[in-house]
Amino acid sequence: MRIGLDVMGGDFAPDAVIEGAVDALPLFAEGDRLVLIGDLAIINNKLEDLGTDPSHFEIVHASQVIEMGDSPSKAFTHKPDSSIVVGYKLLADKEIDGFCSAGNTGAMLVGASHTVNVIPGVLRPALAALVPRLDGKRSILLDAGLNPDCKVDVLAQYGVLGTIFAKNVLGVENPTVKLLNIGSEESKGTPMVKAAYELMKENPNINFGGNIEANELFAEGMAEVVVCDGFVGNIVLKETEAIYHLFKKKAANMNDPFFESFNFETVGGTPVIGINANVIIGHGVSKRKAIMNMIKQTCDVVRIDLAQKIKESV
Amino acid sequence: MRIGLDVMGGDFAPDAVIEGAVDALPLFAEGDRLVLIGDLAIINNKLEDLGTDPSHFEIVHASQVIEMGDSPSKAFTHKPDSSIVVGYKLLADKEIDGFCSAGNTGAMLVGASHTVNVIPGVLRPALAALVPRLDGKRSILLDAGLNPDCKVDVLAQYGVLGTIFAKNVLGVENPTVKLLNIGSEESKGTPMVKAAYELMKENPNINFGGNIEANELFAEGMAEVVVCDGFVGNIVLKETEAIYHLFKKKAANMNDPFFESFNFETVGGTPVIGINANVIIGHGVSKRKAIMNMIKQTCDVVRIDLAQKIKESV
Repeated sequence: MRIGLDVMGGDFAPDAVIEGAVDALPLFAEGDRLVLIGDLAIINNKLEDLGTDPSHFEIVHASQVIEMGDSPSKAFTHKPDSSIVVGYKLLADKEIDGFCSAGNTGAMLVGASHTVNVIPGVLRPALAALVPRLDGKRSILLDAGLNPDCKVDVLAQYGVLGTIFAKNVLGVENPTVKLLNIGSEESKGTPMVKAAYELMKENPNINFGGNIEANELFAEGMAEVVVCDGFVGNIVLKETEAIYHLFKKKAANMNDPFFESFNFETVGGTPVIGINANVIIGHGVSKRKAIMNMIKQTCDVVRIDLAQKIKESV
Repeated sequence: MRIGLDVMGGDFAPDAVIEGAVDALPLFAEGDRLVLIGDLAIINNKLEDLGTDPSHFEIVHASQVIEMGDSPSKAFTHKPDSSIVVGYKLLADKEIDGFCSAGNTGAMLVGASHTVNVIPGVLRPALAALVPRLDGKRSILLDAGLNPDCKVDVLAQYGVLGTIFAKNVLGVENPTVKLLNIGSEESKGTPMVKAAYELMKENPNINFGGNIEANELFAEGMAEVVVCDGFVGNIVLKETEAIYHLFKKKAANMNDPFFESFNFETVGGTPVIGINANVIIGHGVSKRKAIMNMIKQTCDVVRIDLAQKIKESV
C-alpha cells in the first residue's frame, strides 16, 4: 500500500503536514509507504529539524504550490509541477493507491476530473462526511463541499452514491436516504430542492424517506444518508466544528468520547466519492493531529478500496 | 399596547398556544391587552379547562386555519377567515400593535406583503435571528428562513437591514457585516454568493468585513451581522437547536446559562424586518414555554417600535 500526501496543501503547510506525516509513520507496515509530495528541500530540512530519517518516506519533488485562493481550473493547468497535479499523476499512473490533501478543495476536484476521471454514470463526485449520532452509530452527509452550486439531477444522484457508501462503509443493508430541507413537508424548500425531492421519490434504487430538518441531525435513528448541496453541507459541518469548540471551552470537563467525534481533527478528512481512485480531502486548517488522522483515514479507505466498491455498484 | 396572537398556528396549536398565552398574562400591564385570534369555541373551552377567566384576554374569532403544508399564497387568498389573515387585518387596521404566530412562515410573509406592506425601498423582508456569542454579546443572522431562494440584490440588502437592526436593537454603533460562505477568500461560494460579495463590498452604507465561515459562529468578537439566504439561515439555526438538545442529553449537569441561550424555547421567535408592522414568527414546534417567550419578545419589539426604526433608517 502506497499513500500519497500533498505536503504543500493547507493553511499550516508544509510544517504541520510534515509533522503529521512523521506521527503517521507507525501506521505503515513493512512494505507500505507514505509518499511525501512537495518541495524536496523544505521536506528534508523539516525532517532534519524533527530528527526523522528521510528514508522512512518516499519523497517526490514538486516545485509549485496551488494556493487556497487560486482558481481551481486555472491553477491545475498553470501549475503542472504543483504538489496536487503531481499527486494526481502518481495516482493515475498507479504509483500510489490513495492520495490525500488539506489543500485547495476545488483544485482537488478538478484534478480528479482531469486525471483519474469520474466513474462512468456518476454526474459529479461528492465529499461524504461522517455524522456522529446519539445512538453511537454514524450517518453520512453528502455533498460536504465539493459542489457548492449543484444541479437537480446531481443532488438527486447523491442519494444513490450515499446509499452505496452507507452499504459498503457503514455496513447498513437498506439505508434510508433523506433530503436536508427547511421543513418536513414535500412543498418546502427552494425550487431546486423541491425538484430533487421529486426525482428521489421516484428512484427505485434508493430507500427515500423524505425531508430531514437540521434539528434532527445527530439524533438516535436518524437517516443513514443525508443529501444536500455542497454549500449547505459545508456550512452544516463547519457549524458542528464551531459548536464543538464552544462546548469544549465552556465545559472542558466533559470527557465523553462522543463529543470527540465532533472534532474534525480526530476525523481527519472526507473521502471524495464517485471517482476512479481513493482520494481524501482534509480540512484547510488541519494541524499536526488532523493531518495524521487524514493519512490514517486514507489508509482505511485504500484498504477497503472504496472507489472500486462504488464503481461496481453504480 | 395590544398584542395579537395566532392561536391556531404551530404544530401544537391550539392547546400549547393557549397555555402559553395564559403564562404570558403577567407580562401585560393595566391597559395592555393580549388578543387571542382563532376559533372562539376552542379558545373558550381550553380557557375553561385551564381555569382562566376569558375576560383577561380579548378574543377575535377566526373560523379557518392555514395549515403548515398549505401553499402560502393560495392559502392567504382562499382562507380569508383564517387566524393569520384576520391577524394581519387587525394589524393593518392598527387594532393591534404587534402580531405573532408559530404557524406557516410562508403565509406570514405573504400576509405581510398583502396587508401591512413592505417598507418602500426594502426588496424583501427577512427574519432576523439573534445568535449568542462566547463573549456574552449577541449577533444577528439574517435571513433565518423567510426567503429560501433569494436573489443577489436581496441578499446584499440584508447587510443594510442587518446594520439597522444591530444599531437599534443591539446598540452597536458601527456593526461589522459578514457574508456566510464556505471559505474566507473572495473567490469562494456559489455564483450568487460571489455576486452578493461584490455588491456588499461596494456599498458605502455598511461596514463589510468579507466572508465568515460557519466554524467562526458563536465566537468572541464575531461580526455583529451575518448575512445568508433563508435556506442556509434556517438550517444553521435548526442545527444549533439539534446541538443544544444533544448536549442537554449528554451533559445534563451543565447549568451554564450560556447554553440556555441556544434554546429556541427561551428565545421564542424571530422578528420579521422590513415590513410596516411589528411581526414575530415562532418556531413551528413551539410548546407552552416557547409561545410564552414569543409573546414576550413581541412585547419587547413593540415597545421599541422596531418597524418604525427600520422605516426611518432605510
